[in-house]
Amino acid sequence: MNLLPANVRAMLESLRERAISTDFAARLLGNTTPPARRLRPRQTTDAESVAGFWARLREDGCADDAVQAELADAAAIERAEVYGANIENYIGTVKIPVGLIGPLRVNGLNAAGDYFVPMATSEAALVASYGRGAELVSAAGGVTAAVVQEGVLRTPAFVFDNMLTCGLFVNWVADNTDALKAAAETTTRYGKLISIEPFMDVNVVFLLCRYSTGDAAGQNMVTVATEAMCRYIVENMPVPAVHWFIEANFSGDKKASYLGLQTGRGRKVTASVTVPYDLLRKYLRADPQKMLAYGQVAGLGAVLSGQLGAQAHYANGLAAVYLATGQDAACVSESAVGFTRMEPRDNALFFSVTMPNILVGSVGGGTGLPSQSAALSIMGLKGAGKAAALAEVTAAVCLCGEISIIAAIASGHFTRAHQKLARFR
Amino acid sequence: MNLLPANVRAMLESLRERAISTDFAARLLGNTTPPARRLRPRQTTDAESVAGFWARLREDGCADDAVQAELADAAAIERAEVYGANIENYIGTVKIPVGLIGPLRVNGLNAAGDYFVPMATSEAALVASYGRGAELVSAAGGVTAAVVQEGVLRTPAFVFDNMLTCGLFVNWVADNTDALKAAAETTTRYGKLISIEPFMDVNVVFLLCRYSTGDAAGQNMVTVATEAMCRYIVENMPVPAVHWFIEANFSGDKKASYLGLQTGRGRKVTASVTVPYDLLRKYLRADPQKMLAYGQVAGLGAVLSGQLGAQAHYANGLAAVYLATGQDAACVSESAVGFTRMEPRDNALFFSVTMPNILVGSVGGGTGLPSQSAALSIMGLKGAGKAAALAEVTAAVCLCGEISIIAAIASGHFTRAHQKLARFR
Amino acid sequence: MNLLPANVRAMLESLRERAISTDFAARLLGNTTPPARRLRPRQTTDAESVAGFWARLREDGCADDAVQAELADAAAIERAEVYGANIENYIGTVKIPVGLIGPLRVNGLNAAGDYFVPMATSEAALVASYGRGAELVSAAGGVTAAVVQEGVLRTPAFVFDNMLTCGLFVNWVADNTDALKAAAETTTRYGKLISIEPFMDVNVVFLLCRYSTGDAAGQNMVTVATEAMCRYIVENMPVPAVHWFIEANFSGDKKASYLGLQTGRGRKVTASVTVPYDLLRKYLRADPQKMLAYGQVAGLGAVLSGQLGAQAHYANGLAAVYLATGQDAACVSESAVGFTRMEPRDNALFFSVTMPNILVGSVGGGTGLPSQSAALSIMGLKGAGKAAALAEVTAAVCLCGEISIIAAIASGHFTRAHQKLARFR
Amino acid sequence: MNLLPANVRAMLESLRERAISTDFAARLLGNTTPPARRLRPRQTTDAESVAGFWARLREDGCADDAVQAELADAAAIERAEVYGANIENYIGTVKIPVGLIGPLRVNGLNAAGDYFVPMATSEAALVASYGRGAELVSAAGGVTAAVVQEGVLRTPAFVFDNMLTCGLFVNWVADNTDALKAAAETTTRYGKLISIEPFMDVNVVFLLCRYSTGDAAGQNMVTVATEAMCRYIVENMPVPAVHWFIEANFSGDKKASYLGLQTGRGRKVTASVTVPYDLLRKYLRADPQKMLAYGQVAGLGAVLSGQLGAQAHYANGLAAVYLATGQDAACVSESAVGFTRMEPRDNALFFSVTMPNILVGSVGGGTGLPSQSAALSIMGLKGAGKAAALAEVTAAVCLCGEISIIAAIASGHFTRAHQKLARFR
Repeated sequence: MNLLPANVRAMLESLRERAISTDFAARLLGNTTPPARRLRPRQTTDAESVAGFWARLREDGCADDAVQAELADAAAIERAEVYGANIENYIGTVKIPVGLIGPLRVNGLNAAGDYFVPMATSEAALVASYGRGAELVSAAGGVTAAVVQEGVLRTPAFVFDNMLTCGLFVNWVADNTDALKAAAETTTRYGKLISIEPFMDVNVVFLLCRYSTGDAAGQNMVTVATEAMCRYIVENMPVPAVHWFIEANFSGDKKASYLGLQTGRGRKVTASVTVPYDLLRKYLRADPQKMLAYGQVAGLGAVLSGQLGAQAHYANGLAAVYLATGQDAACVSESAVGFTRMEPRDNALFFSVTMPNILVGSVGGGTGLPSQSAALSIMGLKGAGKAAALAEVTAAVCLCGEISIIAAIASGHFTRAHQKLARFR
Repeated sequence: MNLLPANVRAMLESLRERAISTDFAARLLGNTTPPARRLRPRQTTDAESVAGFWARLREDGCADDAVQAELADAAAIERAEVYGANIENYIGTVKIPVGLIGPLRVNGLNAAGDYFVPMATSEAALVASYGRGAELVSAAGGVTAAVVQEGVLRTPAFVFDNMLTCGLFVNWVADNTDALKAAAETTTRYGKLISIEPFMDVNVVFLLCRYSTGDAAGQNMVTVATEAMCRYIVENMPVPAVHWFIEANFSGDKKASYLGLQTGRGRKVTASVTVPYDLLRKYLRADPQKMLAYGQVAGLGAVLSGQLGAQAHYANGLAAVYLATGQDAACVSESAVGFTRMEPRDNALFFSVTMPNILVGSVGGGTGLPSQSAALSIMGLKGAGKAAALAEVTAAVCLCGEISIIAAIASGHFTRAHQKLARFR
Repeated sequence: MNLLPANVRAMLESLRERAISTDFAARLLGNTTPPARRLRPRQTTDAESVAGFWARLREDGCADDAVQAELADAAAIERAEVYGANIENYIGTVKIPVGLIGPLRVNGLNAAGDYFVPMATSEAALVASYGRGAELVSAAGGVTAAVVQEGVLRTPAFVFDNMLTCGLFVNWVADNTDALKAAAETTTRYGKLISIEPFMDVNVVFLLCRYSTGDAAGQNMVTVATEAMCRYIVENMPVPAVHWFIEANFSGDKKASYLGLQTGRGRKVTASVTVPYDLLRKYLRADPQKMLAYGQVAGLGAVLSGQLGAQAHYANGLAAVYLATGQDAACVSESAVGFTRMEPRDNALFFSVTMPNILVGSVGGGTGLPSQSAALSIMGLKGAGKAAALAEVTAAVCLCGEISIIAAIASGHFTRAHQKLARFR
Repeated sequence: MNLLPANVRAMLESLRERAISTDFAARLLGNTTPPARRLRPRQTTDAESVAGFWARLREDGCADDAVQAELADAAAIERAEVYGANIENYIGTVKIPVGLIGPLRVNGLNAAGDYFVPMATSEAALVASYGRGAELVSAAGGVTAAVVQEGVLRTPAFVFDNMLTCGLFVNWVADNTDALKAAAETTTRYGKLISIEPFMDVNVVFLLCRYSTGDAAGQNMVTVATEAMCRYIVENMPVPAVHWFIEANFSGDKKASYLGLQTGRGRKVTASVTVPYDLLRKYLRADPQKMLAYGQVAGLGAVLSGQLGAQAHYANGLAAVYLATGQDAACVSESAVGFTRMEPRDNALFFSVTMPNILVGSVGGGTGLPSQSAALSIMGLKGAGKAAALAEVTAAVCLCGEISIIAAIASGHFTRAHQKLARFR
């Protein structure tokens, strides 16, 4: 009996087949050909700089007219300077299709009304699935939603000689939180340092700095503010630090983490809806009892597979809304955690999502780019004063997606939907 | 002394201020206005269907000419049918700026050569940071990389009356793996069912089905194949199941999970480079000792904050490459886990990333969309036979990003880079 | 507003108060008094060696007659040589009180019958609570239980120069599993190496070696077998390893881990019972609906607090059974993970536990010590052929504890039970 | 190729072999023999009650003279009433052998001096290994240690009709923390409610109540105090709760959790020592470079196997100290998480442990039992004012164990030590 897992054996077999024709050692141990010519950076981003990059790509045989035309179309070149504020070595734009769902009724602390939501994705069946959910929850009276917590983390660390100096530093921080707050807030009109939590490991202190960031997603804002705070600390601290670092990989920035699940990063939104059985049957052709049975198994799967939280596919809704509205798509990694509930009520099912890490802004970042700004306009959530509402609508969208996929899987429609809608590919 | 955390108090204060002017009860407890008019779905996706959706948006006051023009530009309308294969309720495209890095030398089992890599993002400083890393590692001889494992999971569950029937079913599965494999593989030319792992909890069995998926990312492929396998099971099993579900939330699909960290979903790539101290100083103006000191603190931060694995910001590189090349951006949630190492060698630093969940295809999904296909062409990784190489290049890009951010934070350049490059916003 | 958490402020306040009278710097920065005299080890364990240790303790003012008498009572001295096989520097025994529950009916693959279970603990109310559960489940027909998986892990690692040599090693392992198995099994009559899973990170390979260990818990057995396997590897491998280590902190030995939750270490037992509502009311004075309501909240708490699995207090039952029966109490750390379910059935509640890491033996370790051996005798589970049944009874005990605590918390009896039974202290 | 994992196949094979002689269906589906006779509880614990239980055991054939004598020896019977305060259905005591290590020098905020530490275990080699570590760190000047945080959690939950009433409740809590603190503290002279953190999920609020508990471990104390607080809440809250529960499975009580790793439960202790290379060579025959190499691999293993934190075997030291000193052995499950560091210094290695969940008392629980009280006396840590020092010594012991095992594994002595010391078994 072979003791190795079947997938390991399958991999080894395929490598052995290839080894006949490929010298793996030569490939892995290096490439002694002289280094390729460096890509010359351009000082400014404009039509000329774009042309320069394409010239190089064509020279190296990496592009032809057709390829260049798809990325560097007329609009992309014309707006090179606009895009240049958001990127370096700009060569054009990639176009992601956008589908529309709605009107999605949201009864939120901040969002109130019927929203059309543009979703950008290249995954067939996704928009249709969220759209079905939106129709259903709106028919049930809409999604109740609230931002219940906010705070973008930045977590600098200070390293000391020993435990004693480290402890003295924590003591000093405790006495100087007002000054630290002031130092941080000199750099920003909107950011507020709302809490500092010291976390000590022998001679290292992490300072968990939590900020409210107004209507911006705020990742840069908190970095700049924390840098200022750290500089104040370094100049005024009673004992010198051996090292300090602006971010000690503790904040959960760009990655799923338990800290994020528990204390949140960005906005924590909780959203729910109660849907009568007859609406579930009518809109989703779903059997509520079957959905509950699935909920028990899916809860088991979530825990045993080691998710952070328990949910079905927040990432799909998040990525589609983040992309359409100019948010940072990389933040899907940290935002896609939370807890979905489904509970029986009187001839109805209660559904909810709680998402502790929604990182969206209605200003700043990519929200000002032309098409992204247009997408925000469709939602009526562009500009100052709209970020909290945008967070609530985002959670409501994810709730639609959870209900829709649970119904589809429980009813055996899941595969069919994908087969049908992806049929052209 | 107030016993509540400061951020909770800050939130409550801001809500209390707003409560003066807002009736929260009225907002949360519902909206009795009649439901908004339903969005009429269109049977086909074409210029007319696009126009129809915009007509509705304008009617409802959600769009004007300018907004429509940004999403539904001439190219977007002209190609409505092309995009229609990847999305429903199509209304146009969102344009994400693309920056270029490279040439990035990769010495991989599958990727071999100097690659230009297009990255799509709206986060200033990101492309510059990855570009610096790429220049450095190429000067150091390139990134060694290998796909060491593959397998996209789909995890159906079968629910039985009791433990005995459940056990009998597992026994039957063990005797019928050939038939199950055959049933799954009838649906696909490229997908291979390479292992089945039963996981039992009293009366529930999850079957962890792992597939190789050829050059496609394979998420739909494995769903369709597993559906066929399940239908075979249901028709032939010796004891009837009370319920069965095509996916029991165990596979890690669209979410970070420990199962993914440990056994992988998609391709597991391991990539490394050893960089002499003088190159670190020259290209990144970084002090290697300071980088090592940071590495210790960052490792502590990773573990204590509850990451899955330990890394800095895979998500940034992943999202930018996934978006540019037409991969599923939602998969950033599951792909952005793994382990980054940095170790001292003889006057050099060894760096590596191991990423167990890279989900990329060189065919299928969004890879065939016009601009995405163009981006793959630039890399020379479009079409059949290229997915493994694309996975290795993706990991190499993430390695560049890890080195670059570690150097920037250790050297105190991190904030400055963001302030400078994001200065126009 | 103070930005620090209230508990941090409370701690700092108390330290500041103490700082008036204590020189923290002097305390933490060291102790320049000459080192204390070394404790002289004894070659043998017998009455004389015991006396020697006590002489030293008395000399140093750490013990008097009364203290000595409690640990080094006549029986403890008389059996010094017996205990000496299980411990070094033996000075006597600590006495833990044992309570009895049962008869607990178990309908298991391996355990079948009505068991009296001795539980060792010093926590008042614990035995009473488990006893109530045992009475209930027995009245409901008994606990169904099965060992569904087994395998004690040991995970050596091999470190290579680079990815290529590392890959070649994995390839060699794949071709030599029979020889590896043979080498491992030369050291043991009972242990069987049942699977080897290689896990690769650039130049490091972990070999996850899984053993069945007969009727022993098997932690030493797998270490000795793996050492032999590693020595075979080192002598025969085609490429030399830079380092190798018998255990690379991957096996989950003595700690909770996701690997343990998912693949198990020791025996995986799944156990369940269905209890009619009227029995719940009669034996536990509990309202089943209230229990279900609690189950939903407790499931949420489990996930959001970041448990490995979801359960209430396996550790209590495990520790009490492990201690009474001579198992390794430190293994409670790894055993106390799993999943407890509670689901409504027809006028009844279904309860189950699935515990993937039960590490018990009916031979070896502390099971041969006099009082521990007596406790195993009470259960009828002493000696060869009984370990699997012991694992099933252990899981059944934990199931009793889960039902009992859920009922107590749901019904508001939890605190009262503790107040009443701990009243004498 | 068989697609199932080898360990699954091995298990199925062994079950199939047994199935020839065993009717699994009959075993699992129940036992229709009449229920066994109930165990009659006794109102008091004394020699007579002990005799009563043994009479029943003998009647049922579960015990004979020899078995009874081992558990119910003269001392156990004589002190039945003493033990009866800590247990129900008392039938005697189990004797765990105790070994001595020390003198262990601790330079702590609370512990200061040279400590002899009794450790109770039945695992051969354990005491010897910790003893070697203790000798080494003392020779290096002792372990620096500090309790840096404290707080035992109890986490009641309140369930409301909807998000609005739930939010109003949180708002009310914020205004009434003084009253809540007062209500909780009426029940205890020593316990102090030091912080309350509300955690909201739609209509459910968990209140994370953190207490300092004086010199007791405090698990019962915080339950009783929280019950009083909850009763105050229920009587005074402005909106009625649908349900409330004293503990919502959120506190990490008796289980490893991320919440515990991050915010601690009990006392958080950080302890370190810097050991010159020559001492490592002399006392442990270890090569420091090899230890560092092992540290890198072990850190990788810790993260990839999904530990909470990263450490080697805290559980061994914790269990042995907890058992000897009358702590709750079940708490090993929650205490055995944290972070061990090893870093090169100038010709020396720095080692540290940070253990956020040490749950020890110098009064209360099992600390007053005769032999346990004697063990505390040996350490000089019995009674009021000693719990913090006991926590620091416990962490120092675990640090000794970490150093010792790292050296043993890195040097290849690990297996030999176990083989030699466990040789008699």
